[in-house]
Amino acid sequence: MLAVHIENGRVELREKPRPARPKGFALIRLICGGICNTDLELQRGYYSFAGTPGHEFVGEVVEADTPALIGARVTGEINLNCGECDWCQRGLGRHCPRRSVLGIVNHPGAFSEFFTLPDRNLHVLPDGLATEDAVFTEPLAAACEIFEQVSIPQGAEVAVLGDGKLGLLIALALEARGVQVHLFGRHPEKMRIAAAAGAAVREAKDLPESAYDWVVEATGSVLGLRQAAAMTRPRGVVIMKSTVHGEVAIDTAPLIVNEITLIGSRCGRFEPALQMLLSGAVRPAGMISGRFPLAEAPEAFAKAAEKGMLKILITN
Amino acid sequence: MLAVHIENGRVELREKPRPARPKGFALIRLICGGICNTDLELQRGYYSFAGTPGHEFVGEVVEADTPALIGARVTGEINLNCGECDWCQRGLGRHCPRRSVLGIVNHPGAFSEFFTLPDRNLHVLPDGLATEDAVFTEPLAAACEIFEQVSIPQGAEVAVLGDGKLGLLIALALEARGVQVHLFGRHPEKMRIAAAAGAAVREAKDLPESAYDWVVEATGSVLGLRQAAAMTRPRGVVIMKSTVHGEVAIDTAPLIVNEITLIGSRCGRFEPALQMLLSGAVRPAGMISGRFPLAEAPEAFAKAAEKGMLKILITN
Repeated sequence: MLAVHIENGRVELREKPRPARPKGFALIRLICGGICNTDLELQRGYYSFAGTPGHEFVGEVVEADTPALIGARVTGEINLNCGECDWCQRGLGRHCPRRSVLGIVNHPGAFSEFFTLPDRNLHVLPDGLATEDAVFTEPLAAACEIFEQVSIPQGAEVAVLGDGKLGLLIALALEARGVQVHLFGRHPEKMRIAAAAGAAVREAKDLPESAYDWVVEATGSVLGLRQAAAMTRPRGVVIMKSTVHGEVAIDTAPLIVNEITLIGSRCGRFEPALQMLLSGAVRPAGMISGRFPLAEAPEAFAKAAEKGMLKILITN
Repeated sequence: MLAVHIENGRVELREKPRPARPKGFALIRLICGGICNTDLELQRGYYSFAGTPGHEFVGEVVEADTPALIGARVTGEINLNCGECDWCQRGLGRHCPRRSVLGIVNHPGAFSEFFTLPDRNLHVLPDGLATEDAVFTEPLAAACEIFEQVSIPQGAEVAVLGDGKLGLLIALALEARGVQVHLFGRHPEKMRIAAAAGAAVREAKDLPESAYDWVVEATGSVLGLRQAAAMTRPRGVVIMKSTVHGEVAIDTAPLIVNEITLIGSRCGRFEPALQMLLSGAVRPAGMISGRFPLAEAPEAFAKAAEKGMLKILITN
């Protein structure tokens, strides 16, 4: 079968054997995948990655132990956890210390004709949910993780710093939950997507100081954290969403003097994201910048890395 | 009157005029002051400080608008706030943007024969509370600020990183509140003080990884934050207490992947600290490493900066 392979900074196509299906796992045929910034980071050497990437997907179940899944159109949770440890028992399998992660850590990803995931990771997609919306479930779930971690009052003003894919999805998710988003970005054509969902949009220069009780850092830049902290009022909260490769320098004294809270935020549960997509509260399809067949995955990665691009899809 | 003066890294004694007493302010005669690490940082150039330091004190009120204060033995809150802004109205005057800070920002400090503070900042000390315990009220209040910010379950294991003055007071305050402290330090003679209060003490080498849900960073070192973060379990909390001069480099990716929360923590309300001291739940007098008269303040500062020292007091 055809599979994308990343190694030493190169994105290639390789012929690989169709994966074996362990007990409890489903064999899935890729329908549509989304390239995430994490995939571009993996290409740059994050996690010393070598293998098949891809963790945002919609697929069709070909084989599974659960009969109801066979033939179903699905998306799936990306953390493969043990199901037995304390984390898993508390419903926090995405922090299971023994986890592997689809297309990121020790489990081949979805940019491949076929791949596997445990049956229990899969969510059957309702007929009313378009594939090109559903492919955003995983990053939208990451945006919704904010609601699991903090309780933002209705109508509060929240600054979102960064108008990339994740920043926009966070803006859309926050607006859908009744929060007043001020999106700070650099790309008018991207900011328009947030504005259409009700967000106030501002150019990310002359950032206001000590102006928000809630700031979401989604710049993907090493400067983002200090900018976000400077925008935060005393006793305010910065939600850290950018996984930046390498170290970030920050002056901690103002964080302490102003008693600011920084919260790292990563993957989220899929249910709230699927609900938002199905109800139409969040409509991410406007964020699609291009579509490439699996056989043109190297071109898709190159396109995704260009300035100004939002979501590039890989179809099969 | 005699006053300590810090400028360009030097600690001197100067003859200064007795301060005028504005309306609503008390004139206070110093009885006893404590040298804090912040004072040593001010000497090193933090805040470009030039003037009289000193913010931990017990004094006697000489003049005041409030008759009941005259002649009283007092300690006092160090933030001089406007009393009118939103922060002040919410009882968070220590974040008032117009504040000055005793001996730190725009208000001469307590290492002086006489100094002033607003009447409303003062706490009259009960007769049963020894001066050499009461002089720890301000740093103990900073330790107790943790309880205003987070809710640590009874009996939880909390790692305290750093066996300096603040680390020890935090350990004592946490133990007094029924939390099980594991203090990681480098000085057996300092750690004994925490051990006597019930803390488990460990040498701060081969720090355990991902082992605590709660970690207090009180090392005063630029390496402390990354050490504290590495000791914290996924979804755990690091309370940042060290004000380090300059920037700290930290890898934010594991903070985000593990969804760790960092909380800056500074000054606290005096009431809980005074209660702990009065009840004997915290007995800090064992942390006194030396006493110097005001006229020997330069020697007191030099002693406080020596390795292994805990609290150096200045008496008048």
